[in-house]
Amino acid sequence: MKILLIGASGDVGQAAYNALCERHTVISVGRRSGDLQADITDRNSIANMYQATGKVDAVVCTAGNVHFAPLESFTESDFMLGLTDKVMGQINLVIEGIPWLNDHGSFTLTSGVLDRDPIHFGVGAATANGAIGGFVVGAAIQMPRNLRINTVSPGLLDTSVEAYGHLFPGHETVESSRVGRAYVKSVEGLCSGKVLVVD
Amino acid sequence: MKILLIGASGDVGQAAYNALCERHTVISVGRRSGDLQADITDRNSIANMYQATGKVDAVVCTAGNVHFAPLESFTESDFMLGLTDKVMGQINLVIEGIPWLNDHGSFTLTSGVLDRDPIHFGVGAATANGAIGGFVVGAAIQMPRNLRINTVSPGLLDTSVEAYGHLFPGHETVESSRVGRAYVKSVEGLCSGKVLVVD
Repeated sequence: MKILLIGASGDVGQAAYNALCERHTVISVGRRSGDLQADITDRNSIANMYQATGKVDAVVCTAGNVHFAPLESFTESDFMLGLTDKVMGQINLVIEGIPWLNDHGSFTLTSGVLDRDPIHFGVGAATANGAIGGFVVGAAIQMPRNLRINTVSPGLLDTSVEAYGHLFPGHETVESSRVGRAYVKSVEGLCSGKVLVVD
Repeated sequence: MKILLIGASGDVGQAAYNALCERHTVISVGRRSGDLQADITDRNSIANMYQATGKVDAVVCTAGNVHFAPLESFTESDFMLGLTDKVMGQINLVIEGIPWLNDHGSFTLTSGVLDRDPIHFGVGAATANGAIGGFVVGAAIQMPRNLRINTVSPGLLDTSVEAYGHLFPGHETVESSRVGRAYVKSVEGLCSGKVLVVD
């Protein structure tokens, strides 16, 4: 398959890349790195990306920013970062990308653990993750041409402990290879409308 | 208890009002109706509302707009309506309202069935509902002064069939009295961080 992976440079992106590139051609996309550059908060940038790649069999997104802070210091714009970037950015990839997916193709988005196992700094992520989960359920039943859509919802990756571990006291980490396999399951399997939890 | 009910004129709001006013003083708030007027998408309007009521024991919100349309016609601004109105509006009520809640008080928000039982026109609602569910999980563990927060997630109310039933083919309806009791459970009970499903 020809797979477009947006957010390839992050820890989750690397996990997805390593698992998917074993059997597929993966085009990596980042804001500043990768085979192609794109900004998922900018519809024109997304359109340019799809025009550069042409039709693909799967779109995998592991990109999306949220604000991390305690609730008491969260402002409206802190919440809106997650809603416009991680949520609307990934939704934009889908609504812009439907015509660029081959029949029976798939979208795989990324949410995360914080809406089921919250942390002190994670209310923005919890909100965004819940929205992504709701979106894939609502969108899956309406996909044309047997397209599918899921989200992978990983816990704290072993490769992310150095950067983020201090925010997740006592959380068990998840092997990145297991997270990678969830993306393979979404891309190569037949499920749709699922939140693929990797804890 | 002194309870502030925002969105009191809607079907869900009426269900909450009827159940809560049996034992409590309920101040009803609407955009244009009710004891007080407020617009939850406007932080100043929310601040004015709290200044008018003074301290309360519970804030219940049954307000929030989302766009209803098939996925293929959904635009970015259609999605953003739900994210800014139903999601950010309810979150604003919480972050602005924390100082106005008496100790051991509660917030009860409203999400809905469409992120677990989707319909053709419901992808915007599914996304917003998921976000609200994630928010209450992420916020509950950080509430000061033993404040609590939950969301009620009702199916199609019997009182909403005339207006919305055609969008929910074959969905079982939910008695509004059952929906009302879920608000009572959130306000008078001790649970927090819960999505109270009423199907």
